[in-house]
Amino acid sequence: MSDTVTAALLIIGNEILSGRTQDKNLTYLGRQCTALGVRLSEVRVVPDVEDEIVAALNALRARYRYVFTTGGIGPTHDDITAAAVAKAFGRKVIRHPEAVARLSAHYEARDREFNEARMKMAETPEGATLVDNPLSAAPGFRVENVYVLAGVPSVMQAMFDHVATTLEGGAKLLSRAIDCGLGEGRIAAGLGAVQADFAEVDIGSYPYFREGVYGTILVLRGVDAQQIDAAAERVEALVRELGGEPEPVDEP
Amino acid sequence: MSDTVTAALLIIGNEILSGRTQDKNLTYLGRQCTALGVRLSEVRVVPDVEDEIVAALNALRARYRYVFTTGGIGPTHDDITAAAVAKAFGRKVIRHPEAVARLSAHYEARDREFNEARMKMAETPEGATLVDNPLSAAPGFRVENVYVLAGVPSVMQAMFDHVATTLEGGAKLLSRAIDCGLGEGRIAAGLGAVQADFAEVDIGSYPYFREGVYGTILVLRGVDAQQIDAAAERVEALVRELGGEPEPVDEP
Repeated sequence: MSDTVTAALLIIGNEILSGRTQDKNLTYLGRQCTALGVRLSEVRVVPDVEDEIVAALNALRARYRYVFTTGGIGPTHDDITAAAVAKAFGRKVIRHPEAVARLSAHYEARDREFNEARMKMAETPEGATLVDNPLSAAPGFRVENVYVLAGVPSVMQAMFDHVATTLEGGAKLLSRAIDCGLGEGRIAAGLGAVQADFAEVDIGSYPYFREGVYGTILVLRGVDAQQIDAAAERVEALVRELGGEPEPVDEP
Repeated sequence: MSDTVTAALLIIGNEILSGRTQDKNLTYLGRQCTALGVRLSEVRVVPDVEDEIVAALNALRARYRYVFTTGGIGPTHDDITAAAVAKAFGRKVIRHPEAVARLSAHYEARDREFNEARMKMAETPEGATLVDNPLSAAPGFRVENVYVLAGVPSVMQAMFDHVATTLEGGAKLLSRAIDCGLGEGRIAAGLGAVQADFAEVDIGSYPYFREGVYGTILVLRGVDAQQIDAAAERVEALVRELGGEPEPVDEP
């Protein structure tokens, strides 16, 4: 579809790549984008290395309508996202006056020193717009189609929920999921035939293995509810024909 | 370091991008690679679209020593990884004789039909080497430096554990983690100074927010145990100087 609104996520952080930290931002962002009618189309995870961030960001921002980054906006030496984003856009890094004001007020209210390191959290590329951080004051920011968010999931989510109100979504992706209680190998041929008949519905097949039994969850996605319902009817008939009992599954 | 052995992970699947399924393979692979002395250096997540898989795979395999892919090797119409990998390498898709033999024996033993759809799981690019699947017979495969693994975490892990015995690791990355019980803004300046003094140690700072308190876990990584210990001593002294109590944290 030509009116698909796309997005990409750039996850920045050695701790994700080393397996030390399990990323939780992709799943959250994927679900929220889906709900908004925005198609999360690519994700990259890169280390805390400026050239890597710059290269990935420039590849993604040229290609997708929105790019979200997570991680690397804290006060420590390994937080280099603001500098990398500035470099990607060929802009200077500045201390954003509004960010300085917010952080200054935040630390003053808590009787804590607004030191040089914390001042780093006010740095953005020149011309950036701030993204509110209702949890801990240090803002994210936006430059053109790139939204720079925190890595800590609770803060990232609070920031994204604010950003979400400003995004322009496309046609909303609807979905229905059916647990067919049969292994993929049983239903594959019939399912392929249904998929061939419904070009506008994207039928995904997700096998699972639980308590010694193979089953498959079938997910039908598309923007046309009638088409999805018609395809789902065909899928359910197929499952029954093969001796299974189709069970609807709640989508997250 | 010039002797760093690098790897990349390509996660294939609409269900990861839509947020329907939380990926668990990245964390597993990241930890295993770290333990093997292989540096997981980039991850990409792409949809079940052939051109996207081909482009990502060709970018990654040219750049990293090892590339692992997860997902898309089942029997259904949306499983297109074998065809995409073949296209990326400019090879034909064949029915791998050994894979056919294994699957045939597997289904025969279970009195289940080895149908056309299941036959699809024996398809590989020409010249591929099989990767054993001790859980459900359908093998993964390797072409040059690309290892094609299942998406279901239990199967992926069993496959990877087998592959791991064949990888050539580099110098093992050692790490020590310290919970400093202080917010990042307190320790950032001193920490930056320690980092500047220990170029061979990579000091990461990971803030957390628990029960209303900000804290930070500091992770020191490198290949030289003495350097790490010396840097850790400096970090601990810094934390005490700032009124904190450094606590060692077990690394996963």
